[in-house]
Amino acid sequence: MNDDARKSCGRHLRRIEGQVRGLQKMVEEDRYCIDVVTQIQAVRAALRRVEDEVLADHVSHCVDAAIRSGDEGEQRAKVSELVAVLGRRTR
Amino acid sequence: MNDDARKSCGRHLRRIEGQVRGLQKMVEEDRYCIDVVTQIQAVRAALRRVEDEVLADHVSHCVDAAIRSGDEGEQRAKVSELVAVLGRRTR
Amino acid sequence: MNDDARKSCGRHLRRIEGQVRGLQKMVEEDRYCIDVVTQIQAVRAALRRVEDEVLADHVSHCVDAAIRSGDEGEQRAKVSELVAVLGRRTR
Amino acid sequence: MNDDARKSCGRHLRRIEGQVRGLQKMVEEDRYCIDVVTQIQAVRAALRRVEDEVLADHVSHCVDAAIRSGDEGEQRAKVSELVAVLGRRTR
Repeated sequence: MNDDARKSCGRHLRRIEGQVRGLQKMVEEDRYCIDVVTQIQAVRAALRRVEDEVLADHVSHCVDAAIRSGDEGEQRAKVSELVAVLGRRTR
Repeated sequence: MNDDARKSCGRHLRRIEGQVRGLQKMVEEDRYCIDVVTQIQAVRAALRRVEDEVLADHVSHCVDAAIRSGDEGEQRAKVSELVAVLGRRTR
Repeated sequence: MNDDARKSCGRHLRRIEGQVRGLQKMVEEDRYCIDVVTQIQAVRAALRRVEDEVLADHVSHCVDAAIRSGDEGEQRAKVSELVAVLGRRTR
Repeated sequence: MNDDARKSCGRHLRRIEGQVRGLQKMVEEDRYCIDVVTQIQAVRAALRRVEDEVLADHVSHCVDAAIRSGDEGEQRAKVSELVAVLGRRTR
């Protein structure tokens, strides 16, 4: 990953860590289930955005490096890997 | 939430907090993007299981209490709320 | 289902049938894969909207009838069924 | 698409067309909402499998042709297109 992407992901993950701690507190304080679920959905959406960011960086750096290398085997490997990881994604 | 569900969710959320910290470390150490994404997908799946747990507890306690109350307005409110929150879920 | 919802769903399903036939033609004419996939995604989204429509009608009629009946067993059955069917939904 | 994949997709789409007609009949006959929704979910899953099939064929033919061509611009275009279409997928 490039420097900017790494910093941005690190910042988002620290924020997500705080949200997970907030969730623990909500559960301990026995807050209303629907509010807990809504907050879990928000944390999952935030993680999805980090996933998007890492994948975009991967395509523009690692996959692009394979393209520039001209190495067909490497290119095929990167495409398979990308299809596999994108296939496992969930919303 | 009942006591068991609350303890179990708390335990899972503490584990998820550790996984999010692990993700921060992976990003700092510039680990391979695909491994980072795979780990993000695992954390999102773990959060989904906590969501399932909270919702199951909600249905068997809060919604069931509304049914036992015999209060139609309350029952309608619980059903709408449930449909809304289940509609916002993502895999 | 009430009359309006039934007519509206029927109309949408006839349109979807036409789209599926269009897809068969695209495949026979060997149209570009990405265009075929984009069209499959559109048909799946259209089916999802019919699903939404049927579920909304179900909640406002069948589930509501169970609430009005005052029959706790029936209410519990409707809620379980709703949670199960909403849990199987995909985007 | 290659011949086998085209025939297989055609066959599946004809079956799906029949399922959509079956759905119209279920709606006309005012069948129970939950059964209609369950059947819509089955048709959407069947369409998802056709989508998988077309995408797999696309990767092993169109994307692979771009790799063999050694044309970097074409390779980049195919990767972007693939990421876009996989990003729009839903379960």
